[in-house]
Amino acid sequence: MEPQGLLARMTRALRCLPGVGPKSAQRMTFYLLQRDREGARQLALAVLEALDKVGHCVECRTLTEAERCAICSDPRRERSLLCVVETPAEAEAINEATGFKGVFFVLNGRLSPLDGIGPMELRLDLLEARLRFGDIREIILATNTTVEGEATAHYIHDMARDQQITISKLAYGMPLGGELEYIDGATLSHAFHGRKNV
Amino acid sequence: MEPQGLLARMTRALRCLPGVGPKSAQRMTFYLLQRDREGARQLALAVLEALDKVGHCVECRTLTEAERCAICSDPRRERSLLCVVETPAEAEAINEATGFKGVFFVLNGRLSPLDGIGPMELRLDLLEARLRFGDIREIILATNTTVEGEATAHYIHDMARDQQITISKLAYGMPLGGELEYIDGATLSHAFHGRKNV
Repeated sequence: MEPQGLLARMTRALRCLPGVGPKSAQRMTFYLLQRDREGARQLALAVLEALDKVGHCVECRTLTEAERCAICSDPRRERSLLCVVETPAEAEAINEATGFKGVFFVLNGRLSPLDGIGPMELRLDLLEARLRFGDIREIILATNTTVEGEATAHYIHDMARDQQITISKLAYGMPLGGELEYIDGATLSHAFHGRKNV
Repeated sequence: MEPQGLLARMTRALRCLPGVGPKSAQRMTFYLLQRDREGARQLALAVLEALDKVGHCVECRTLTEAERCAICSDPRRERSLLCVVETPAEAEAINEATGFKGVFFVLNGRLSPLDGIGPMELRLDLLEARLRFGDIREIILATNTTVEGEATAHYIHDMARDQQITISKLAYGMPLGGELEYIDGATLSHAFHGRKNV
């Protein structure tokens, strides 16, 4: 009913959220202003404060409001065990699901020369310094199985090869609970050819 | 990686958005802080300004930053034709899709005594004054076909009955392009029993 103005501006602004198209953005605008003004205010304030105070951990580059994130500043974590991931969310997922007791290095992206994302953008210089001087025993390459993710893992593999470091990757195969019929062909082929004797 | 603090607060705050669960909220937090800080800032500022300045149109009760919304302040709209809807989004949808040239009354809800939403919460007092003194020729009841929506329409129908006003409702039946096989039984039955000679 108000094609211009603050409602339209708020709807447009909500579209910066991943997965939010014009219809949901409009629904969110009306919902917040009509039903949850207090929630909307808390949201705006939380975003502004996070923008102001959240930066990158000086060691692992994950998002944190501290100089060092909770994991990097935890003396019980094994610092010789380093898991490389693309995003903070993936580090969190591995940390929660696996009982991993080492530390992370978060690339915040993947190599993608066409988008201007090279080794410096991922701060692979920091990672290299750590591999060289950081007393790392094993590096786990947990990038995604996309072309760019694999290329990134390959690049890091090359960096680490000359050091006396175990280099590992996640195991790929059938997801637990996955049914053969519904699994994509690439995964199925990978699982089949990588079958193990039992 | 940072279970407490600003990241968690921002993720929690994002869950006030309709349709956003814990996983998408976390994804949004990481995305905004990592990839689109400028968009996040615009979002927060747009929300705060809308909260500050957007209120209800004094005539139709839709959300607007002006005293009267664009439709109510447009002299070309037929003020004797009044369409009652539950939400500003529904008014906008009707306005855009139908070529309707009248004006709206937005209930911003529906009668729901158990939730404490009665006639006063929907400002049916304003609607009644308008029906009584506003020279209305036709009132179109475009509430939803839920139990509460129907009850609300019924209530307004009773209010309008004594005035010399045409009362209409939207036509219900098969949606255009809908296939018989996939339509819900209630709609199909409605369309079947309301069939028309051609």
